Amino acid sequence: MAPTLALVGATGAVGSVMIDILNGRPEWPWGEVRLIASPRSAGRKLTVRGEELTVQALAPEVFDGVDVAMFDVPDEISARWAPVAAERGAVVVDNSGAFRMDDDVPLVVPECNLDRIGERPRGIIANPNCTTLSMMAALGALHREFGLRELVVASYQAVSGAGVAGVERLYAELAAVVGKGVGVRAGDVREALEAAGLPLADSPFPAPLALNVVPSAGSYKGDGWYSEELKVRNESRKILGIPDLKVSATCVRVPVVTTHSLAVHATFERPVTVEQARRVFDAQPSVVLVDDPERGVFPTPADVVGGDPTYVGRIRQALDFPNTLDFFVCGDNLRKGAALNTYEIAEALAARA
Amino acid sequence: MAPTLALVGATGAVGSVMIDILNGRPEWPWGEVRLIASPRSAGRKLTVRGEELTVQALAPEVFDGVDVAMFDVPDEISARWAPVAAERGAVVVDNSGAFRMDDDVPLVVPECNLDRIGERPRGIIANPNCTTLSMMAALGALHREFGLRELVVASYQAVSGAGVAGVERLYAELAAVVGKGVGVRAGDVREALEAAGLPLADSPFPAPLALNVVPSAGSYKGDGWYSEELKVRNESRKILGIPDLKVSATCVRVPVVTTHSLAVHATFERPVTVEQARRVFDAQPSVVLVDDPERGVFPTPADVVGGDPTYVGRIRQALDFPNTLDFFVCGDNLRKGAALNTYEIAEALAARA
Repeated sequence: MAPTLALVGATGAVGSVMIDILNGRPEWPWGEVRLIASPRSAGRKLTVRGEELTVQALAPEVFDGVDVAMFDVPDEISARWAPVAAERGAVVVDNSGAFRMDDDVPLVVPECNLDRIGERPRGIIANPNCTTLSMMAALGALHREFGLRELVVASYQAVSGAGVAGVERLYAELAAVVGKGVGVRAGDVREALEAAGLPLADSPFPAPLALNVVPSAGSYKGDGWYSEELKVRNESRKILGIPDLKVSATCVRVPVVTTHSLAVHATFERPVTVEQARRVFDAQPSVVLVDDPERGVFPTPADVVGGDPTYVGRIRQALDFPNTLDFFVCGDNLRKGAALNTYEIAEALAARA
Repeated sequence: MAPTLALVGATGAVGSVMIDILNGRPEWPWGEVRLIASPRSAGRKLTVRGEELTVQALAPEVFDGVDVAMFDVPDEISARWAPVAAERGAVVVDNSGAFRMDDDVPLVVPECNLDRIGERPRGIIANPNCTTLSMMAALGALHREFGLRELVVASYQAVSGAGVAGVERLYAELAAVVGKGVGVRAGDVREALEAAGLPLADSPFPAPLALNVVPSAGSYKGDGWYSEELKVRNESRKILGIPDLKVSATCVRVPVVTTHSLAVHATFERPVTVEQARRVFDAQPSVVLVDDPERGVFPTPADVVGGDPTYVGRIRQALDFPNTLDFFVCGDNLRKGAALNTYEIAEALAARA
C-alpha cells in the first residue's frame, strides 16, 4: 500500500512552499496526505495534487497510520511533537533546530549523506538550517574530490528565513521609506519607520532592514556568537562528516525577500583549480553554474529565487591562500534551504519503504 | 600666508560631502578656497564657511597659487589633471584609482601611515578605495599590536559608492517594486523595473539592487576577480606596509544608500583575545565600539551613516583558527571612505606647510 505522508506546519511560510513542491513533483509515491497545523489554522482547505484537503489540528492521533511526517514548525513545537509522531510509528523529517545536533538523529542533505537516513534510533531525521543548506550541495561535491579543511563564510540572508512575519515586515518597511530620501543620516530610517507606525518592537528583526543590513541572525549564544553562525559550523561538520572542519561564519540579514547568498572561502587538502571545480559542479545535477563575470553573469538572489538548485558563480582561485577557492552561492532558503531538502528525504524514505 | 585649498569635483557625490566637512571642521588653516568642476557645473554657487563661492571650470590655470588640491573625480580625469595641478605647484590628494598603486605615490590613511605624506616625488598623494578605507583604521590599530598576516573579507557595499547615479537608481528601483509583492519569483524584480521604465541598461549596476544583492563591484580584471576585490588586497598591503599580506575579498553591492560594511576574518602573528582587541579599539579615537550582542547592539549602516569614525562590533575569537578574530565594521563610504580621509591628508599637509 502506498505510504501516508503528513505535513506539520502546512500553513506556514515553509509549509506553503512545501505544498507547491508536492504539487509540482513528477513522481508521486504517496497514498494519503494529511495537512496538520496549529488549532488556529485547523479547518482551512488547501489543494494537494488536485484534491482539496482540510487542515487538521495537531494532536497525537493525527499521526496514527502516518509513515513519514514532515515538520516545518518552530523548535519548541518540534521538540514536543516530533517524538509523539515517532512514537505513533511515523518517521519524522524535522526542519527545526530541535534535533539537529542530537547524536541519535542523522542530519541529512541527500547530495552529501543520504546513506544516513537508515540510522534513526529516535525515529527522527533532521533537516539542516537554511543557511548551511544553501551551500551544502556545492561544498559536498568539492569535498568529495578535494577534501574540505577550512571554511570562512559571510552570509546575505533573506527575510523569509524569519517566516511570513519577516517578509511582511520588509515590505512594510520599504513602503514606509520609499520616496522619503532617507538612509543618508544616522537614524533617519528608524525615524521613518516610527512615523509610519512601524516601531522596531513589532519587528522580527533587531534593527531596520529597509536600506540596511543587520549582522545578527538567530539568538545570542555567548562569546559574541549568534546561533545561526554556530549552526553553520556545527551542522557543516556533521553533514560532511568532518568533525575537525575549521569554520568561521558571519551571518548578516539583508533586504531580500527569499534566497540566501553566501560568500565562501574554502580551503582543501589537495590543490584545486577553477576548471576542476567547474567540472565537479557540472557533474552535480543540483548545482547550476552561473559564472561568466566578464559578461556580468553571476547568480543574484532576485534572479534565482523559486529555483531548486544551488546556483554558484564568481569562482576564483584565492591569490594568496594555497588550495583555496573563493565563490558566491545563492540558494532559495524556502526550497532547497528548507522544504525541498525535507521532501527529498521523505521521498527517499518512501522509495525504501 | 595661509595656504590655498582647491577642491576638484566639488559638485559630485563625494564633493558635496567634502563641502559639508569643510563647513563643519573646528580648525581652519586655509586662506583661499577654490571650487572646481567640469565646465558643465561651472558657475554654480556653493557656500563654504559662510562665503559664497563660484565653481570654476577645470583648466590648468585654476591651479596657479594652489597649495593643496583635493581631487574627487573619475580615474580618467585624475589621470589627466592631477599631474597638471602638481606641475603648477599644488600637492594633489587624489581620491581616484589612477595613482594608488604607483610606487612614487604614497597611499595614505592617517591612522596607519601619515608619515608617508612627505615622500611624494610626483607631487601626488593617493587616497585609498572606499572599501579598503572602511576597515583600515580598525585593522591598522590591530596590526600595530598583533601583526596582521591574513585577511578574508566579504563586503556589503552601499550604492553611493557609484555616485549620485547609484543613489538615484536605488531610490527609483525601490519606488518601482514597493507594494508589488515582488522578489518571490525569479526575474520578477527585473520585470517590475522594466514595467516602470527602468531598464537595466540605464543602471550603473549590472543587476537589480532593489530586493537583491549583487556580487560585483568595479570592473572585471580577469581570473574571476573584479577590480574592487583586487583593490582591497593590493591597497591593504601598501597602506599597512605588509607586502606579503594574504588577502581574499568578495565585494557585494547591497541596497543601502551610504556606508559600507565588511565581515572581517583577520589572522595575526601573535595571540589576540576579544578583550585585547577592545582595548586597542578603545585607544583609537577614530574607532567606535558598538558591541553588545547580548542586547542586540552592533553597528548597522543605517544607524551610523554620516559619522566620521569606523564603527566596530560583533568582535569574537574565531573558534577554529588560532590568533584570529572575526568582526563586523561599518564606515561611511563618502566620509572616512572618501572625503574625510582626503581632507585629513590635506589638513596634515597644511600643518606641515
